[in-house]
Amino acid sequence: MSSRIKISSRGSKFPESPIRKLNPLADRAKNQGTEVYHVNIGQPDISTPERFMRGIRESNVEVLSYSPSKGIKNVLESLVGYYGDQQIELEIDDLMVTTGGSEAGLFAFYVALEPGSEILIPEPFYTNYRGFARMTGVDIKPIPTRRENNFALPDKEIIADLISEDTGALLLTNPSNPTGRVYTGREIELVKNIVLEHDLFFISDEVYREFSYGDTRPASALNLKGIEDRTIMIDSISKRLSSCGARIGTLASRNEEVMNAALKLGQSRLSPPTMGQLGLTSFLDSPDYSSEIEEMIDRYEERRDVLLDELGKIEGLKFGKPDGAFYLMVELPVEDAESFVRWMLTDFRDEGETVMMAPGEGFYNTPGLGKDQVRLSYVLNKQDLARVADLLDKGLTRYR
Amino acid sequence: MSSRIKISSRGSKFPESPIRKLNPLADRAKNQGTEVYHVNIGQPDISTPERFMRGIRESNVEVLSYSPSKGIKNVLESLVGYYGDQQIELEIDDLMVTTGGSEAGLFAFYVALEPGSEILIPEPFYTNYRGFARMTGVDIKPIPTRRENNFALPDKEIIADLISEDTGALLLTNPSNPTGRVYTGREIELVKNIVLEHDLFFISDEVYREFSYGDTRPASALNLKGIEDRTIMIDSISKRLSSCGARIGTLASRNEEVMNAALKLGQSRLSPPTMGQLGLTSFLDSPDYSSEIEEMIDRYEERRDVLLDELGKIEGLKFGKPDGAFYLMVELPVEDAESFVRWMLTDFRDEGETVMMAPGEGFYNTPGLGKDQVRLSYVLNKQDLARVADLLDKGLTRYR
Repeated sequence: MSSRIKISSRGSKFPESPIRKLNPLADRAKNQGTEVYHVNIGQPDISTPERFMRGIRESNVEVLSYSPSKGIKNVLESLVGYYGDQQIELEIDDLMVTTGGSEAGLFAFYVALEPGSEILIPEPFYTNYRGFARMTGVDIKPIPTRRENNFALPDKEIIADLISEDTGALLLTNPSNPTGRVYTGREIELVKNIVLEHDLFFISDEVYREFSYGDTRPASALNLKGIEDRTIMIDSISKRLSSCGARIGTLASRNEEVMNAALKLGQSRLSPPTMGQLGLTSFLDSPDYSSEIEEMIDRYEERRDVLLDELGKIEGLKFGKPDGAFYLMVELPVEDAESFVRWMLTDFRDEGETVMMAPGEGFYNTPGLGKDQVRLSYVLNKQDLARVADLLDKGLTRYR
Repeated sequence: MSSRIKISSRGSKFPESPIRKLNPLADRAKNQGTEVYHVNIGQPDISTPERFMRGIRESNVEVLSYSPSKGIKNVLESLVGYYGDQQIELEIDDLMVTTGGSEAGLFAFYVALEPGSEILIPEPFYTNYRGFARMTGVDIKPIPTRRENNFALPDKEIIADLISEDTGALLLTNPSNPTGRVYTGREIELVKNIVLEHDLFFISDEVYREFSYGDTRPASALNLKGIEDRTIMIDSISKRLSSCGARIGTLASRNEEVMNAALKLGQSRLSPPTMGQLGLTSFLDSPDYSSEIEEMIDRYEERRDVLLDELGKIEGLKFGKPDGAFYLMVELPVEDAESFVRWMLTDFRDEGETVMMAPGEGFYNTPGLGKDQVRLSYVLNKQDLARVADLLDKGLTRYR
């Protein structure tokens, strides 16, 4: 036998999920009988809507066949109706069903960007963008945003200074994971001007569209006039229908070339999952679907308020009031938040319980930033969230 | 508004599916009321096993949540059991659940191959390999195989001559789509020696494992001794469980580095579809699952025999007797098979019926090859296949 073969350098260098890499520690704690509260991931505890699951359970599928690569026709029609209800007027040609928002993101990067080019993303950002960038050979250039400033976009000149000949796109997650920011009309206008002036694509990740609790409703990039050819939307039903495991997302653009290329990528993976599409169309065909989503959003707002209240009682924490999504970046009074998160999993127990948070550093590209931060997801019920704050408080006291 | 923005060159150059690109013609024919027999795609008409669908319909899912990126634990255990039944001894660490065989293929290319490197694949080959290669920046170098020779692999020297410094892997589809060939022990041994001598990965696509009708059972690459670190298997339940729309596949390797890197890719897309995994484990946990697959294989063998019989009555066709999968490459007595396939969809009708075949050229990389060939899939019942042959006969007579 010859010497062992080496995998590709891109394979060996592929970034590990900074959120999931601590899972072994959590698993060990659970095996020891410890109750671990998970506020480290965006997996809601809310029941998937009955109408969605009925669409799956009561389907009369005889042959579970491929769907069209673009998605089942009546699912696409249901989606056009949904977007219309959201005041986003689309035609079937403007969208395709993807295997989760993840695939929509991967396709958007691939179609919009040349290998070796750069994409601007406000930092901190959703960690999986790093994966899409690596898979497509694109570099992420972070736009700095600060907790002290509630993660607002910086001035136009600061963003413009980051743009080079190699910059191909700007990505905004609105509302933002991990910061919870809902960008203002002024910020969206700023992005619009930048992509126009610098000839960039605007990739808009709107999977948390409905998750907004303040006066500012998140504006869809698809409604911006004059940049219709530059706008690509990434979307997913995972959060708004609590159906992460369905793996159903959407890619939408009014740029015909974008959609044609994305559809060819879609053909090369044959089809998005059929069962999730059946669930989705069943749910969207229900006349009162939007009130069901609204009720869920009310619950998240209550959760956010409880979490903010409880965290407010803990000395030394720094955080703003996020208006969207279900995440919160919190600055802890520790030097290295990841060490603290690890210690909470390995050493800290209070009545047999502990909490798992996502270390903040993984959401930043710039070395050293976010080292004292954690991201908390308020995907648990109010009692559990109060207990999370309690555990955090006790943990910090004992840790210092 | 500035001038229109351009998509990436890789996006605009992405290959269109040669099989699906004729769909608009078929749709038009159907809209005119024409019955179109589809032998152009690998979508079986066979019912998805009852046990599979029950696993989906009777699941007591409350929250349709992400599964682990690697797959649900008891699904992985069921898969280990399935592979054991196939005399392929694997451990959970050796495999992961993917979103269809498509994703397994994409991950294998990405992990095994550097951008700009080459992969050897016997030609004609499954067209979507071209998509995986493009997405990962890899070039396909075809190994020539000929219809006259029943698509056997050429001599070792011919293959060795194709290998350069840039060659990183050899891929075999066994049984083969589109040729139906089941490679002999001698051929598999040849591949083993080549990957060892030239330090290549061996990517083995075994999605048609059970679809074999002759004396030679397709050997799994995972059972080859001495190249355990070089072997990566792509697999899928789509065909053997007639569950193409479930989007469940497997990537397997005993090379730990391969699996670690693939799992990181898997984390960046979060999770394979949950419902399909529930169906799969329900099916595999049934004690008589393998007899259900065997009965299905018997039906395919009958279909193959009917199709071969009926095609044998048509003057001027040239084809061998394939022993596996459910495809057949047929040389037609026409100069340009694609024109003929188009004409069958646009102009030819017999009692309001016609047939759709896949033009052969799309399965070849070498320009000009396969121009007089079509691929037929025997995924229809025997009566329909007899009618397909009848329509082909009449079509050819009228066309010439």
